[in-house]
Amino acid sequence: MENSTQTPAFTLPVQISFGHCDPAGIVFYPNYFRWFDRCFHTFLLDRAGGHRKLCGDLGARGIGLMDVGANFPSPALDGDMMELQMTLLDWGRKTLKLGYRGLIGDRTVVEGFELRGLFVERDGRMRAGDMDALRAVLEP
Amino acid sequence: MENSTQTPAFTLPVQISFGHCDPAGIVFYPNYFRWFDRCFHTFLLDRAGGHRKLCGDLGARGIGLMDVGANFPSPALDGDMMELQMTLLDWGRKTLKLGYRGLIGDRTVVEGFELRGLFVERDGRMRAGDMDALRAVLEP
Amino acid sequence: MENSTQTPAFTLPVQISFGHCDPAGIVFYPNYFRWFDRCFHTFLLDRAGGHRKLCGDLGARGIGLMDVGANFPSPALDGDMMELQMTLLDWGRKTLKLGYRGLIGDRTVVEGFELRGLFVERDGRMRAGDMDALRAVLEP
Amino acid sequence: MENSTQTPAFTLPVQISFGHCDPAGIVFYPNYFRWFDRCFHTFLLDRAGGHRKLCGDLGARGIGLMDVGANFPSPALDGDMMELQMTLLDWGRKTLKLGYRGLIGDRTVVEGFELRGLFVERDGRMRAGDMDALRAVLEP
Repeated sequence: MENSTQTPAFTLPVQISFGHCDPAGIVFYPNYFRWFDRCFHTFLLDRAGGHRKLCGDLGARGIGLMDVGANFPSPALDGDMMELQMTLLDWGRKTLKLGYRGLIGDRTVVEGFELRGLFVERDGRMRAGDMDALRAVLEP
Repeated sequence: MENSTQTPAFTLPVQISFGHCDPAGIVFYPNYFRWFDRCFHTFLLDRAGGHRKLCGDLGARGIGLMDVGANFPSPALDGDMMELQMTLLDWGRKTLKLGYRGLIGDRTVVEGFELRGLFVERDGRMRAGDMDALRAVLEP
Repeated sequence: MENSTQTPAFTLPVQISFGHCDPAGIVFYPNYFRWFDRCFHTFLLDRAGGHRKLCGDLGARGIGLMDVGANFPSPALDGDMMELQMTLLDWGRKTLKLGYRGLIGDRTVVEGFELRGLFVERDGRMRAGDMDALRAVLEP
Repeated sequence: MENSTQTPAFTLPVQISFGHCDPAGIVFYPNYFRWFDRCFHTFLLDRAGGHRKLCGDLGARGIGLMDVGANFPSPALDGDMMELQMTLLDWGRKTLKLGYRGLIGDRTVVEGFELRGLFVERDGRMRAGDMDALRAVLEP
């Protein structure tokens, strides 16, 4: 997969807990997406003072999600420590594609992506904004 | 408990699902509070057009939580249908106490309360607003 | 998209609530996956007595997730009533692909899929089981 | 409140993220209980190899919740770093009361408790087990 060769832009440690798991004893999958989103927002906090400040700086309403996907090669259990690596995979003119990989030791438990856009209001309508200004902040 | 004698103001059916349950196979307890909150907000939708419209009507920022508690006499499992009953338990001058009881058949699985206040901004500061106007809407 | 032409096998109504939404006022996206999963499990309950009974009948450990994806053409807000339609999109020898579409009125807010497999234990190892028996139950 | 004078047995740092917050821009309250539970389970991992191992050692089915409560003196926002302190507040013969306090800097945003019991199966029925063995492990 394409995100395997890049250095992660950010890494979020996630201590898998009892409450993240389902009756089969493995992580209930929607939690992975909460961690994807949290990883991206923690990256924004680290790199640019957070989502709110960044949107203020860029005159945007949000850096929202357009498309997302993931697959799960191996299960994660209560007590596992997962390292979630995030990569700035691809910049389009109006999109940013983020790649994610969750590792427990050297075993991959989740691999996925988020496609995000910058939402700006113009003439009372929401539009996808140009990514140049965001790119300049996140990839200096 | 005091809320057992009143007629519920609202009832929310909750179909307990696999993903609500933990590795012990029973409901992961924070979910009960998501259902308490959803029950109250669905009641607001039913009675007053929803939280946003109601706050607009009352000039308030939110109907927020101050205190909450619950106990769990019996477990709930994947496949159970829970009926969550909500009672307008007590109106204070600046508070509303809601009582909750979750039943599976005639077995109680959760019993709890929420203490909520009306948050209004005055002179740039957030304050607890008077409950009279809210009471007039919710208890006509 | 391919799932638009089939009749849904199951439909789950979802009343969007305040607590499902983020500071931008729209549904926090991991919730859509909780609803996908809940829709599938409620379908199992309706069609086959639920996940636990069905796994017992089939000698399986679970009907787990292998791959998932979604896109979000339009936002959903507190107070919206979403109808989540699920389609049995495609049966492979060892996989079932489910299609999802969430509608508010006739506006699509989410479109996605889950690829699921039947996990059986054989000789102490977890394997992907044959889907014939599951198909016979779910598509009589 | 009684838990203010004891040294915390465990502290969990929680980086408040966008997805933890509601349309009012503050933490959606059920998340605090997910953090209470995660704090306790991370403590078990740190002190006794985790919930599963500990239950195995003690012949128990779980260390489950009986009663819980919290109040919210001040809001927490996206970007805040909360330090969640947990105290072993009180050991009963068949109960353990845990105290929680969440601080952002020196401002308390949540204060609460969990009352937990040890669930053991005896003669085919679930009973509350004696806490002596658990106490010996957690408070050496």
